[in-house]
Amino acid sequence: MLSKESIDTLVENYISSVEFPAAPEKLYAPIKYSLRGGGKRLRPAIVAMAYNIFADDVQRVLPCAAAVEMFHTFTLLHDDIMDNADVRRGMPTVHRKWDHNTALLSGDAMMICSYGLLEKMPATLLPAILHEFNRLAIEVCEGQQYDMDFEAQEDVTLDEYMEMIRLKTAALFAGAARIGALAGGASDADADALYRFGQQLGFAYQLQDDYLDIYGTEQMLGKKIGGDVAENKKTFLLISALREAGDATRRAMMATLRDTSHSLDQRIGRIRTIYDSLDIPEVTLAAIGSHLDKAGAAIESLSVAAVTDKTAPLKNLLAALRNRNK
Amino acid sequence: MLSKESIDTLVENYISSVEFPAAPEKLYAPIKYSLRGGGKRLRPAIVAMAYNIFADDVQRVLPCAAAVEMFHTFTLLHDDIMDNADVRRGMPTVHRKWDHNTALLSGDAMMICSYGLLEKMPATLLPAILHEFNRLAIEVCEGQQYDMDFEAQEDVTLDEYMEMIRLKTAALFAGAARIGALAGGASDADADALYRFGQQLGFAYQLQDDYLDIYGTEQMLGKKIGGDVAENKKTFLLISALREAGDATRRAMMATLRDTSHSLDQRIGRIRTIYDSLDIPEVTLAAIGSHLDKAGAAIESLSVAAVTDKTAPLKNLLAALRNRNK
Repeated sequence: MLSKESIDTLVENYISSVEFPAAPEKLYAPIKYSLRGGGKRLRPAIVAMAYNIFADDVQRVLPCAAAVEMFHTFTLLHDDIMDNADVRRGMPTVHRKWDHNTALLSGDAMMICSYGLLEKMPATLLPAILHEFNRLAIEVCEGQQYDMDFEAQEDVTLDEYMEMIRLKTAALFAGAARIGALAGGASDADADALYRFGQQLGFAYQLQDDYLDIYGTEQMLGKKIGGDVAENKKTFLLISALREAGDATRRAMMATLRDTSHSLDQRIGRIRTIYDSLDIPEVTLAAIGSHLDKAGAAIESLSVAAVTDKTAPLKNLLAALRNRNK
Repeated sequence: MLSKESIDTLVENYISSVEFPAAPEKLYAPIKYSLRGGGKRLRPAIVAMAYNIFADDVQRVLPCAAAVEMFHTFTLLHDDIMDNADVRRGMPTVHRKWDHNTALLSGDAMMICSYGLLEKMPATLLPAILHEFNRLAIEVCEGQQYDMDFEAQEDVTLDEYMEMIRLKTAALFAGAARIGALAGGASDADADALYRFGQQLGFAYQLQDDYLDIYGTEQMLGKKIGGDVAENKKTFLLISALREAGDATRRAMMATLRDTSHSLDQRIGRIRTIYDSLDIPEVTLAAIGSHLDKAGAAIESLSVAAVTDKTAPLKNLLAALRNRNK
């Protein structure tokens, strides 16, 4: 069994070692820029950790892990176009550093390269892995579409919102965990448990993102806070606040969201004051804790739960996420 | 052995039968709109015809054939964004009918759906098919990048241009033919011969596109002619003309290409006059004929070349392409 730290290192080294052709330069330079521009590498680590519960030779699953990370990075690249974002991980987004068409096409190529990595997996595993990969990939697109739909929709319910983030965010974590499990030879029951683990972790992760967009700092996040306010995104905090607020507060909140005559910082300040008055930070942190607990329970439901050194890396990952501030 | 017409019908029916979820509506409606909006279905027909040379149950290869067509349709959708095109196959392009972000995201989803179709192929064939599919997919992106690079590059040689269209256009035809061959159980030599067939057909097809952009009509093509002039695209005709022209004619041509003070129709008229004076139509049609001849020779190099009913559909396809005017 490898420690969380050893797995993180293996994953990072493998991703750094993935090679791309030199030409055409404008196609591949943005891919290298995006993929090597950091990131927490959470999703590929989950692939490798899930695998390592059932099999020792973690090297064998690294192409899958890198494929998941590369697909995730591709989605960020295209999302940044759609959201018109300027900064990602403290650096200019691809469509700002290059141009719009370059970002579009190199994103397409990055997605294809992620499928290319799957070729390195053993032939016997390929059908199951391709199926799971396709599923997470299309679900991420569905979630992104609902996210954009919700920008123009006033009355998004919490259930609708949770379904949206199940697709947009949790499906990738869940699929990553199941791909690792399947590649390692897990039983269906264990693969399903790991899927639930990834899904609950993904819910928590997205709620943390929502929280940090208002209560984080630019320094911590490597991008401006308040992006969700600027883009009129529905978030867990906003939907919870609209539900809790009385009529007057709800009207004040909607007015602030629509009010582009004030600076974003001023509007974020007002929104934060309203959220504070409604205990939204506490509600959100409790929801995050609940999803992380469920992710922990999924680990405990594994057939190998009693072999504590097998599940330690995933538990350490959960523990680290409890204090996420970036 | 099925006739070309029977294969065309099978392919069209299979593509029409591919189902997509109803929601999110803005993600899947553009995919259905694009995929069911017609098109010559040449590429999937080539998959099925190549397969049918070596195996009888053509139904089995139809998912692959549809995957190739869906990938091609995805590339058109994203290319239309990059080229800012208004019309495709006589209908508004997706980014015009919906909006830019919808076209971007539904294009991504369409690419994933094309990989989803590959899952329906037998597990034993999947590694080879996925490899070939990934290869043609990334080559199409590389070609599109060179095509865009060339818009800003004055001195593109004919060799550079042919390498660009090898990637952008011929790789998809070539890959389609090899995927069909591999799925049908062809020998490596036969699969390579069919790859060459598809590649040469692809060269001819792109030169015909270049030709029709100046010498076709909007009615025939379902889109405005002169798009290459408007987008400053390098074409076989333009590069050949610049090579043949004397200094004065070359200057006149460059001035016309840069001259946005006149209407596109006026500029196309001038370009056409210059091409005519340099015998560019004849040069282009001869090059097209030469590539089609090479495609025919590749068919004749197949181990089954003597079994004429096996190769008849591909030969009929070539014959039909000799007179392509749309």
